[in-house]
Amino acid sequence: MQGQQQQAYDRGITIFSPDGRLYQVEYAREAVKRGSPSVGVRTAEGVVLAADKRRRSEMIEPDSVEKLHKADEHIGIASAGHVADARKLIDVARRESQVNRLRYGEPIAVETLTKTVTDFIQQYTQYGGARPFGVSLIVGGVTNGEPRLFECDPSGTPYEWRALSVGANRNDIREHLEAEYDDEMSLEDGVDLALSALTVADDEELTPEGVDLATIDAETAEYVQLPDDEIEEHLEKRDLLPSDDDEAGDDEAAGE
Amino acid sequence: MQGQQQQAYDRGITIFSPDGRLYQVEYAREAVKRGSPSVGVRTAEGVVLAADKRRRSEMIEPDSVEKLHKADEHIGIASAGHVADARKLIDVARRESQVNRLRYGEPIAVETLTKTVTDFIQQYTQYGGARPFGVSLIVGGVTNGEPRLFECDPSGTPYEWRALSVGANRNDIREHLEAEYDDEMSLEDGVDLALSALTVADDEELTPEGVDLATIDAETAEYVQLPDDEIEEHLEKRDLLPSDDDEAGDDEAAGE
Amino acid sequence: MQGQQQQAYDRGITIFSPDGRLYQVEYAREAVKRGSPSVGVRTAEGVVLAADKRRRSEMIEPDSVEKLHKADEHIGIASAGHVADARKLIDVARRESQVNRLRYGEPIAVETLTKTVTDFIQQYTQYGGARPFGVSLIVGGVTNGEPRLFECDPSGTPYEWRALSVGANRNDIREHLEAEYDDEMSLEDGVDLALSALTVADDEELTPEGVDLATIDAETAEYVQLPDDEIEEHLEKRDLLPSDDDEAGDDEAAGE
Amino acid sequence: MQGQQQQAYDRGITIFSPDGRLYQVEYAREAVKRGSPSVGVRTAEGVVLAADKRRRSEMIEPDSVEKLHKADEHIGIASAGHVADARKLIDVARRESQVNRLRYGEPIAVETLTKTVTDFIQQYTQYGGARPFGVSLIVGGVTNGEPRLFECDPSGTPYEWRALSVGANRNDIREHLEAEYDDEMSLEDGVDLALSALTVADDEELTPEGVDLATIDAETAEYVQLPDDEIEEHLEKRDLLPSDDDEAGDDEAAGE
Amino acid sequence: MQGQQQQAYDRGITIFSPDGRLYQVEYAREAVKRGSPSVGVRTAEGVVLAADKRRRSEMIEPDSVEKLHKADEHIGIASAGHVADARKLIDVARRESQVNRLRYGEPIAVETLTKTVTDFIQQYTQYGGARPFGVSLIVGGVTNGEPRLFECDPSGTPYEWRALSVGANRNDIREHLEAEYDDEMSLEDGVDLALSALTVADDEELTPEGVDLATIDAETAEYVQLPDDEIEEHLEKRDLLPSDDDEAGDDEAAGE
Amino acid sequence: MQGQQQQAYDRGITIFSPDGRLYQVEYAREAVKRGSPSVGVRTAEGVVLAADKRRRSEMIEPDSVEKLHKADEHIGIASAGHVADARKLIDVARRESQVNRLRYGEPIAVETLTKTVTDFIQQYTQYGGARPFGVSLIVGGVTNGEPRLFECDPSGTPYEWRALSVGANRNDIREHLEAEYDDEMSLEDGVDLALSALTVADDEELTPEGVDLATIDAETAEYVQLPDDEIEEHLEKRDLLPSDDDEAGDDEAAGE
Amino acid sequence: MQGQQQQAYDRGITIFSPDGRLYQVEYAREAVKRGSPSVGVRTAEGVVLAADKRRRSEMIEPDSVEKLHKADEHIGIASAGHVADARKLIDVARRESQVNRLRYGEPIAVETLTKTVTDFIQQYTQYGGARPFGVSLIVGGVTNGEPRLFECDPSGTPYEWRALSVGANRNDIREHLEAEYDDEMSLEDGVDLALSALTVADDEELTPEGVDLATIDAETAEYVQLPDDEIEEHLEKRDLLPSDDDEAGDDEAAGE
Repeated sequence: MQGQQQQAYDRGITIFSPDGRLYQVEYAREAVKRGSPSVGVRTAEGVVLAADKRRRSEMIEPDSVEKLHKADEHIGIASAGHVADARKLIDVARRESQVNRLRYGEPIAVETLTKTVTDFIQQYTQYGGARPFGVSLIVGGVTNGEPRLFECDPSGTPYEWRALSVGANRNDIREHLEAEYDDEMSLEDGVDLALSALTVADDEELTPEGVDLATIDAETAEYVQLPDDEIEEHLEKRDLLPSDDDEAGDDEAAGE
Repeated sequence: MQGQQQQAYDRGITIFSPDGRLYQVEYAREAVKRGSPSVGVRTAEGVVLAADKRRRSEMIEPDSVEKLHKADEHIGIASAGHVADARKLIDVARRESQVNRLRYGEPIAVETLTKTVTDFIQQYTQYGGARPFGVSLIVGGVTNGEPRLFECDPSGTPYEWRALSVGANRNDIREHLEAEYDDEMSLEDGVDLALSALTVADDEELTPEGVDLATIDAETAEYVQLPDDEIEEHLEKRDLLPSDDDEAGDDEAAGE
Repeated sequence: MQGQQQQAYDRGITIFSPDGRLYQVEYAREAVKRGSPSVGVRTAEGVVLAADKRRRSEMIEPDSVEKLHKADEHIGIASAGHVADARKLIDVARRESQVNRLRYGEPIAVETLTKTVTDFIQQYTQYGGARPFGVSLIVGGVTNGEPRLFECDPSGTPYEWRALSVGANRNDIREHLEAEYDDEMSLEDGVDLALSALTVADDEELTPEGVDLATIDAETAEYVQLPDDEIEEHLEKRDLLPSDDDEAGDDEAAGE
Repeated sequence: MQGQQQQAYDRGITIFSPDGRLYQVEYAREAVKRGSPSVGVRTAEGVVLAADKRRRSEMIEPDSVEKLHKADEHIGIASAGHVADARKLIDVARRESQVNRLRYGEPIAVETLTKTVTDFIQQYTQYGGARPFGVSLIVGGVTNGEPRLFECDPSGTPYEWRALSVGANRNDIREHLEAEYDDEMSLEDGVDLALSALTVADDEELTPEGVDLATIDAETAEYVQLPDDEIEEHLEKRDLLPSDDDEAGDDEAAGE
Repeated sequence: MQGQQQQAYDRGITIFSPDGRLYQVEYAREAVKRGSPSVGVRTAEGVVLAADKRRRSEMIEPDSVEKLHKADEHIGIASAGHVADARKLIDVARRESQVNRLRYGEPIAVETLTKTVTDFIQQYTQYGGARPFGVSLIVGGVTNGEPRLFECDPSGTPYEWRALSVGANRNDIREHLEAEYDDEMSLEDGVDLALSALTVADDEELTPEGVDLATIDAETAEYVQLPDDEIEEHLEKRDLLPSDDDEAGDDEAAGE
Repeated sequence: MQGQQQQAYDRGITIFSPDGRLYQVEYAREAVKRGSPSVGVRTAEGVVLAADKRRRSEMIEPDSVEKLHKADEHIGIASAGHVADARKLIDVARRESQVNRLRYGEPIAVETLTKTVTDFIQQYTQYGGARPFGVSLIVGGVTNGEPRLFECDPSGTPYEWRALSVGANRNDIREHLEAEYDDEMSLEDGVDLALSALTVADDEELTPEGVDLATIDAETAEYVQLPDDEIEEHLEKRDLLPSDDDEAGDDEAAGE
Repeated sequence: MQGQQQQAYDRGITIFSPDGRLYQVEYAREAVKRGSPSVGVRTAEGVVLAADKRRRSEMIEPDSVEKLHKADEHIGIASAGHVADARKLIDVARRESQVNRLRYGEPIAVETLTKTVTDFIQQYTQYGGARPFGVSLIVGGVTNGEPRLFECDPSGTPYEWRALSVGANRNDIREHLEAEYDDEMSLEDGVDLALSALTVADDEELTPEGVDLATIDAETAEYVQLPDDEIEEHLEKRDLLPSDDDEAGDDEAAGE
């Protein structure tokens, strides 16, 4: 049966299996799971996006590991999975945001942007000649003073979350989020939760360079990326800093 | 034979099997069965649409689980199956409704809208280069004061029903509807029937947040989504509220 | 060999088998056989079209089971097989009829309409990228006062018949028609023959709601659909009414 | 090897086998052999075309079994094989004949028409995306007072014959034609030969309704279809009329 | 391995095998070998083209077996293999010859015409969507008073020969040509050599009707087809006439 | 399973395997590993690019082995893998650099150029009809006085490195780079490091002709290729010159 | 595994194998090896191109075996492999040379022409719908008084050589060239070396008619093809003339 499954995936179109599943979409979900995790947390005061960007070699510039992207002044996107695919979707999101400003003279709503991206993704699951996107996105931002947090998965389905993670160890991290999440938490608490979530089910500890973290404050509606020293403060506060320097990653991981 | 069937579905076109069936369409029906159920009930006073939107995690915003859609002032659509596909068909329905208002200056007839959507779906079952839609829709509304209730299935066939369900547990729910349905029932009774149908063959009970429910009253011809407290009243009246809080769902269900 | 046949049908083009058959066309004929039967009878006084539209659930509105279609004032079409495909061919027939009226100022000849439709069907049996139509049509009407009755099958071949059936139990019904048909019969007799034919080889009896019946009188050249009470009269006269109410159908039949 | 051959035919293009044969073309020849036979005879006085159109049911109108076609005033075409394919080629022939009259003000030469049709057929044996035509044609007519008789086969090769048959029992009929043919025969004799040829290797006898027969007289250069009574006279003269009424055919033959 | 080879040829594109061969081209060469032979002989006085056109039935008009074609006043083409393919290449050659006369006011050079045709053939060996041509051509003619004789094979390679054959029994005929050829031979001797070559390795003898023969004299540069009585004289002279009448051919040969 | 994998790679599109990997992209990475190594080193004073271009025959002109390419005045690109593919990407990079100068009147940023190239590469991993690029590039240059060093891999992912290698023995060379790299090193030290890295895990020693080496000085921002004598000095200094002349390479390596 | 490899090559696109090789390109290299060898030698005084054109039959005109081609006044191209493919690339080269003269008023540089051709070849290794070219070219000529000698292989990679061979016995001939080559040799010596190389590893000796040889003198920059008597002198001088007349070749070689 292994052989049959292998045959099944090597055709160039996403179609239904006898039990009604879209194999190429599910395999794309596997590609997401191969990527290091990203986390999003929505608080009453704003949205937090955080990403594990531990590198497979210390010779890689940390800043070049693209996990957090500014889509517009008021919207950030975290990704997990196939990096080159993520870059393409980010492009779509940025262009759409600019078009909205030009056409309507106002920032695009977070939900509108999310659904534009998921509709784009859906095309790649129904027509032949291309494969689905091997990436999941967390879209976070502020619309009319209200923090919003969405997921775009490889099937092109939009979901709104209070807190979520995409990528490796998704289930463990979700349990952690569900246990620790509190509707009343401050943005600062949100940052702490996001950072602690990234350390879940990971046998190593985080360094400030191994993490990207951004917030969109509900009041300012501005995407702000935290500097390393502030991240370090948070990690210290939560006792998440590594005791020793064992920050190696997988060698030549396919996802990232 | 399992192997042969697996081979059969991984080609990019919907063609006939030796016994005259369209496998890709039947597999798309399986995708519908994987989705949580939606229900439609037509009464003399109007149409009721209801959908089970229990989430796979309590961290998901209930409102972002899209099962009920307003297609036009006087028409609602409930869906079951592949969410991203449903979104695309809803888009078609909304555009068609708007075109009708612009062109003829009047609301589109429910039957006309249904057949436009099913003709659109049929294309995806006959031509190569794309897969069928993995979703069934319930289209409910009012035309000239008369309540109408239709189904659009993955083959592109339109059916008119007095009461129906699509999605998981379809047969059990249909038996319930057939047993409980009464041509004389009021819209209120229709709401009760729709809610009770959603609990059939489901080992859990409903919470107001786990259900979307809308009515289109024959007199006003307006699509109205019920607020949670009114749903709660109905559930209470019918003793359908959960005794304990076991509302977990499948983890990472493919359909939704 | 079963395996090989299964492999054979899952390619996207209709080509010849070693013994000179077009498998996709023959499988489309199987799709027709899966549909409930329709019958056509030509008498000197006009044409009768009748269709079995027994439903798989009593909750389905009988009128929404589309088996009989008015193509133009003077032409009706009965179908058996894949409903969504039939809808598409009916569209072609209706458009062609309108074009003929606009272009030549007169109703289209029944034979002309039939051959336009069969030429359209033939395209789908020779070119790649699409499957054949899984439906057979009975085209009946009046041209210059003369009743005509044609069949369009999935290969795109037109045949003229005195009386025929398409769909399930075709052979048994044909034997009945051959035995009972009389060139001298009146239109009334034709209606009776059509109704009795539908009950052949069927273990259930007909109800007026389970049948659609239309006539095109040679004199008026007008397509007239019979109301349920007239159908009931005919059924009663021929003793075809059901003694008990066992009108259930197949669950979820693929054809219809 | 049977399995391999089955695999071979289910691809959408006509290519060479290791021994230099075009399988799809040869399978199309099998489709021709599945059709009831047609015969052509060229005499000094004109050309005779005859076709066996015995029906699979007596309820089919004999005139609707299309085996003989008038391509132009002076040219007739008999066919054997896939009826819907024949219709398409006849269309090509008729259009080409009309174009010739419009462009050059004179009837098209029989050889010119034949080669236009065979060139059209050849395209379907070399390019992908379509299957070959499953039909052979006999093109007979008069050019400048001279009777001409050609064959168009599924490979697109034109041959000129003195007398030939296409379709079922081709070899037996050819032997009969070779034995009975005489260069000096009159058109009347040609008619007799054509009719007797159709009865060869057939365990049933012919009825006038079961045969179509047309002549193109060298002098008048006009395609004339014989009425049933004249055919009956010929059959009687040659003692070919059936003694009893066993005219049933194959049930649901694929070819016709 | 036989099975694998069979799989190999049923794909719609001509690509390399592991040992660097183009299978579809080699299978097309097999199609050529299935055709009856054609011969070309170049003498100082002109070029001779001859073709075996023995028919599979004596009812076929010998003139309709197209093996020798006049491409232009001064160029003839003999073919072997798939007749319908040959017709298409002859069309290309004739059009190209006419274009040359129109554009440059002079007859096309034999070598130029040959290379135009081979370039056309090459396209069909490199791009997908069509199969190679199953035919080899012998192009003979006179350029500036000089006799030229070329071969176009299914790979699209042009070769110039002093004497050659294409089609069945190619090797035996070549040995005969190599043994008998003489650079000093007259055009008459060339005719004798061509005719004797056609009888090599053939268990039957030639009849004038079974042969087409044409010469292009270096002085007149005119393509002249020999009448049957002159061919008979040559056959008699060389004792090649048949003693008895056993001229039957293969039944239904694929090539011709 | 080996057989299944072999089947898997011979389809013309890059799709996901069940574990979420893109096989064609990973196989393209193998093509990179088959190429001789290239190295990039970023120092505070500028960037060093070096490439092993040992030839498979001493008859090959060393300068024609293209491993180092000048993309613009201030940017160089080193490659490993499929040479013809590298040439195509270099073309893209050069054109993009020129367009930037024309449009904005200033040199393109190294990061901008890198991401334009990786976006181009990504297309070839998602759409059918073409294979991915079998090459990795090291893009080095200076933007606003700052040295930058990027990698473009076959998936289309951009990474920034302090020092890296692509091609054969990548892991061994990386270990060497990680051990020897020093943020404070001078450009001269960078040259030494690059050269010593190329000798790692290689059983032969380098000759000046077997190496291409270029620097882009942060101050001048000019791509300068080192002459052989300067390379020799460096090799001598580091004792990397060969003691004997055993510089043979693989015969007919596929990558280069 | 043989079977799997056979399956692998019969798809219409050039993609990566698991070990990073492009099978279709490597099979095209096998097609080159099937062709008789060509040789190129660069001396200080000019370039020599030579080709073995021994024929498979003495009836073939030696001049029609195209192995050496004049691309422009100052550039010649020798080929080995699939002749029809070579003709197509030569066409590209000639057109490009003419365009260069028209556009810039000067002869095209040898390196420029080579890279235009290899870029053209590369396209056929990356996109679907066509196979790679089964031919290698040796491009020799003079640019600004300097002799240049390049190879274009089926992958589309350009190499510059001092002396090389392509086609059959490539390795043996290369060893001979490496052993005998001298940077100081005269053009005359180059001719001798080229001729002797062609006899290496060949059990037959050369005749002047079996060889094509051309030089491009660095001073005149003119492509000059040597007449047979001069070739004979060279062969005599080097004792390479055949003692007996055994010049037969392979029968029906695929490559040429």
